[in-house]
Amino acid sequence: MFKVTFRFENGEAVDGFAAAEENLLEVARKTNVAIDAPCSGNGSCGKCRVKLLKGTLNSPRTRHITEEEYAEGWRLSCASKVEGDIEVEVPDIASAYRSRMKVADLSSPEEVAIFDNAKADVEAAGIVLKNDMEVVDVTMDAPSLEDTMPDNERLMRALKKQMQVEHVILPYTVICKMADVLRETNFSVRCVIGRTGSKGNIFVYDIFPKDAKVIIGGLAIDIGTTTVSALLIDMVTGDILGKASSGNGQIRYGADVINRIIESAKPGGRRRLQKAVIDETINPLIQQMCRAAKFPNKQIYRMCVAGNTTMNHLFAGVNADPVRMEPYIPTFYKTNSLYASDLGLTVNPDAHIIIAPNIGSYVGGDITAGTLVSMLWNKPEFSLFIDLGTNGELVFGNSDFMMSCACSAGPAFEGGDISCGMRATDGAIEACTIDKETMEPTFTVVGDPGQKPIGLCGSGIIDVISELFSAGIINPKGKFVREGERIRRDKYGMGSYVLAFQKDAGAEKDVEITEVDIDNFIRAKGAIFSAIRTMLNSLEFDVSMIEEVYVAGGIGSGINMKNAVNIGMFPDIPLEKFHYIGNSSLSGAYTMLLSKEAERMTYQVASNMTYLELSTVPTYMDEFVAACFIPHTDTSMFPSVSQQ
Amino acid sequence: MFKVTFRFENGEAVDGFAAAEENLLEVARKTNVAIDAPCSGNGSCGKCRVKLLKGTLNSPRTRHITEEEYAEGWRLSCASKVEGDIEVEVPDIASAYRSRMKVADLSSPEEVAIFDNAKADVEAAGIVLKNDMEVVDVTMDAPSLEDTMPDNERLMRALKKQMQVEHVILPYTVICKMADVLRETNFSVRCVIGRTGSKGNIFVYDIFPKDAKVIIGGLAIDIGTTTVSALLIDMVTGDILGKASSGNGQIRYGADVINRIIESAKPGGRRRLQKAVIDETINPLIQQMCRAAKFPNKQIYRMCVAGNTTMNHLFAGVNADPVRMEPYIPTFYKTNSLYASDLGLTVNPDAHIIIAPNIGSYVGGDITAGTLVSMLWNKPEFSLFIDLGTNGELVFGNSDFMMSCACSAGPAFEGGDISCGMRATDGAIEACTIDKETMEPTFTVVGDPGQKPIGLCGSGIIDVISELFSAGIINPKGKFVREGERIRRDKYGMGSYVLAFQKDAGAEKDVEITEVDIDNFIRAKGAIFSAIRTMLNSLEFDVSMIEEVYVAGGIGSGINMKNAVNIGMFPDIPLEKFHYIGNSSLSGAYTMLLSKEAERMTYQVASNMTYLELSTVPTYMDEFVAACFIPHTDTSMFPSVSQQ
Repeated sequence: MFKVTFRFENGEAVDGFAAAEENLLEVARKTNVAIDAPCSGNGSCGKCRVKLLKGTLNSPRTRHITEEEYAEGWRLSCASKVEGDIEVEVPDIASAYRSRMKVADLSSPEEVAIFDNAKADVEAAGIVLKNDMEVVDVTMDAPSLEDTMPDNERLMRALKKQMQVEHVILPYTVICKMADVLRETNFSVRCVIGRTGSKGNIFVYDIFPKDAKVIIGGLAIDIGTTTVSALLIDMVTGDILGKASSGNGQIRYGADVINRIIESAKPGGRRRLQKAVIDETINPLIQQMCRAAKFPNKQIYRMCVAGNTTMNHLFAGVNADPVRMEPYIPTFYKTNSLYASDLGLTVNPDAHIIIAPNIGSYVGGDITAGTLVSMLWNKPEFSLFIDLGTNGELVFGNSDFMMSCACSAGPAFEGGDISCGMRATDGAIEACTIDKETMEPTFTVVGDPGQKPIGLCGSGIIDVISELFSAGIINPKGKFVREGERIRRDKYGMGSYVLAFQKDAGAEKDVEITEVDIDNFIRAKGAIFSAIRTMLNSLEFDVSMIEEVYVAGGIGSGINMKNAVNIGMFPDIPLEKFHYIGNSSLSGAYTMLLSKEAERMTYQVASNMTYLELSTVPTYMDEFVAACFIPHTDTSMFPSVSQQ
Repeated sequence: MFKVTFRFENGEAVDGFAAAEENLLEVARKTNVAIDAPCSGNGSCGKCRVKLLKGTLNSPRTRHITEEEYAEGWRLSCASKVEGDIEVEVPDIASAYRSRMKVADLSSPEEVAIFDNAKADVEAAGIVLKNDMEVVDVTMDAPSLEDTMPDNERLMRALKKQMQVEHVILPYTVICKMADVLRETNFSVRCVIGRTGSKGNIFVYDIFPKDAKVIIGGLAIDIGTTTVSALLIDMVTGDILGKASSGNGQIRYGADVINRIIESAKPGGRRRLQKAVIDETINPLIQQMCRAAKFPNKQIYRMCVAGNTTMNHLFAGVNADPVRMEPYIPTFYKTNSLYASDLGLTVNPDAHIIIAPNIGSYVGGDITAGTLVSMLWNKPEFSLFIDLGTNGELVFGNSDFMMSCACSAGPAFEGGDISCGMRATDGAIEACTIDKETMEPTFTVVGDPGQKPIGLCGSGIIDVISELFSAGIINPKGKFVREGERIRRDKYGMGSYVLAFQKDAGAEKDVEITEVDIDNFIRAKGAIFSAIRTMLNSLEFDVSMIEEVYVAGGIGSGINMKNAVNIGMFPDIPLEKFHYIGNSSLSGAYTMLLSKEAERMTYQVASNMTYLELSTVPTYMDEFVAACFIPHTDTSMFPSVSQQ
């Protein structure tokens, strides 16, 4: 046994123990030390670096570590074996995640547009935008020596009479505070109530003095594999009070759902993964958002969560292992068993958690919620709904039928697995053109005017690859075939294109895109395109029969559909058919939270949807390989691109 | 500001800060240092002693501290004012409470007799001894690629079909474990279920592999002001699996309910008082009892709590201040809002807590539960039910009417406020005779043969006082009027009688009874007797009309009714009318826990009971003063005593 001391930037340290030859990343996880490892330790992402302070490690230099860095002691923990007592420094991942957190500026109409649209769309389909929660004022007779009814019966009696119901439930939180609140304003109070069950019985979520300003808060959350987004709303008016997003803290345990499940099945893993998404991601999001909105977090009385099946299960702290093993049976598709207090969420402990329903192990609530607001279920046109997440999911159909499928795209659409990749937040290059002659780029950066580029978000990467290809700088395989000031090659010959040199960038290094990045992105777009083809083929449809395409996901609102077609990500059909609908998982969760009818409709949408398991279709793999070119091995599928 | 360092026996220390002249006990409480103070700091009990190690304290010597002790540094913290930086040693109260904890030996038939009697009595009254909980075995079809229903729907479907119900609720705890349990025995499981609501819907408390040995545990608790008793039962058979009792950890915040309420109203007080009874008393009781019974505490799925109104409220962590202030309105008389997880009880988190109903601020669930098992509500005879607790409570009536009242007796019946007092556990003198000539005592000690005496429990004190009086050793005022080897006087002239010299005792000092003890006990018995008189007078009844008397409480099963009459505690009526029914609060809670019908009957008993507030009866105070003699100022009320 060797001793491994992990030192942190804040000066703290933790000791762990390792067997001879034990993998350092595994030792860290066992010791509950957070090291970023989106590729889950297969050596591909280069993010799990630690700095060796004392002792020696059996650890080769990899392409992710320069010679200077290696000399300074930097090692990839996933590639390191322990051979003696050592001391390593671990970069502070928690603060890195916090810095990636972004509270939205709601004064920008763009931030709230998708929710207004979602509301308008479902309302147009006849769905009432109303839930069962409301604020009611109640006045009781004050007690006296002649009228000694205790507080709880007094309040229940008054509510039963006023609301004409048989049963009133006062939960523990209300029992605890009622003696003080009732006496503060002489037995006139303001209650937050919900009507439950078919008889409209009343659940009292909270009580306040009679003149208190009370807004019933609701929280919609999209738990993506890579990104978590949240929305704070007024449950009565539907107004957006706050919006924020952040990286999913689980990413250090693996970039995709399979690696996360494997990690969660290790001893203590379920709790670790749940902690990463709740304590380290969602609770800080709630805190930041509530602080910005000046809203008390305990006045959030209901939540709606949309996420894929694995994210739902890891969020709930439920064994997700059966999700990845035949016959792929999760604990739940939908459940109404979860409350905030069960999961340690920092909202009102009685807040009920609505879960957007999963329809299988690999098509989850993010897709059913997204399908709701795509309105595909309510239209005669054959429509395709594409959610570009870490898993790419597709739904094709109309008001008569719906089929879904899922493919593993990886985190590239959200900037993951891309050396300068980032989400579509301040500093992200979201659109780009490249001069065919000079090879000089012109780009748009998310943020205030003058914001310097820091990295590339999904829509920016599409543009850059499309422009590099159009300018003949890269070939259909994504390899660099021209030379110039902005084109560099490392000593292994791997090419890259510099979008912004460090002096012009907001980061401490050049903003560039490498052949590895392009290769990762080509595989992601290939997965999407081949999934579209395979699903349509299985229905004996052709891409020409698609009447509308709804594109969703955190890829960025600046997505240039023409460029996405150019690189062979989307089928070559008229551009006016494409619509970007933003984070439909979040707007769907918002709609379900706000409207009981919308919630019910989502369950119905889920139960009407069939699922195609792509891996069982013999031609899928061939389709995928053929799609891993720009735009495709069969260029006849992309006549508009060939014309250029 | 001065610094006060509190040192503990285990070597730990805590620093607090005090203003000049600040009371040391208050400083300790502010600093959350536990110092025993049953009189809540009024200087009467002498239990809050600390040892001054460094610095000086403005602290007079009191009658509770000998000159030697004072010289050693012992001070009463409630009588001490801080005048500089000091360091004091605090006796370890927590371990003292633990050592006072007692797990009963169930092989003794006496320990379970009162519960068997209670069961037989309520059953004879036509009450079915059955609740809504049971163990059911369910077998599901195992899932396959063709049958992909998720686990939760699969289990709910099977239960709905088997049990013929519409709704099945799976709480979070079950959702969390079901993936593993279902797969452990190939989708055949054993469930702990409860039927809820009028339609008999099912709540699934727990699931186990199909061959698991599963007993549904239930927990009955009597929360007395001085003593807490608990019972672990099999909810299906009613078998007693464990029994234990302990001092109430709140006692250091005051011996009576008023002092506890005052303490709870200070900043942080509610949490402190709740912690004292739950974390320091009930949870350790559960742990000890479950360990002795080899029973997993998480398999306790329901609880019933009986206690007075203040104890209920402090247990729930609810503001109890309105209980003591006009118009004396508590938050609840009864409530079904409490679950184990709300209060941090170490049983199953979904365990529902049944509260024996209070009927007013000063007649609580201990009395309604006790009245249930006294069977007074089901008999034509005029009966008197007396619960000898820290509050003495009385119920008088029959199947046609019931009246209750409460008086403050103090903790003397349970051995509190008595220098050698203790509960009726091993080492307690529970019965005694004293030779009129030699003044030598003969006594019975609780415990195995050969157990040496440690102190006196309530029944022992009654005997000793009665015998001292009969032998003419004390006068009607309780003052010593004879001299002898066993009679001692301190330098103030205060007399005491030694029951066992240190060499014969199991304690480190003599077991004795002092004039102060006798005085405390006389006031306690005076409170009871005057309450009986006042209540009967208000109904225009005379003591001769009482047909049965049921005596309950922790006074000890050895209570000698003749002696209790001799000292004027109970009215002078034929002895065969008296029945000791033990801790009826606990046996009532047991019955309510076991039987839904008994629970409903208790609510009915509570709603049929009227309450007499003694303080509003002008003659009560005179009655009390007249009763503070042995046996009474008016000896004509005690003809049988006068005859002797």
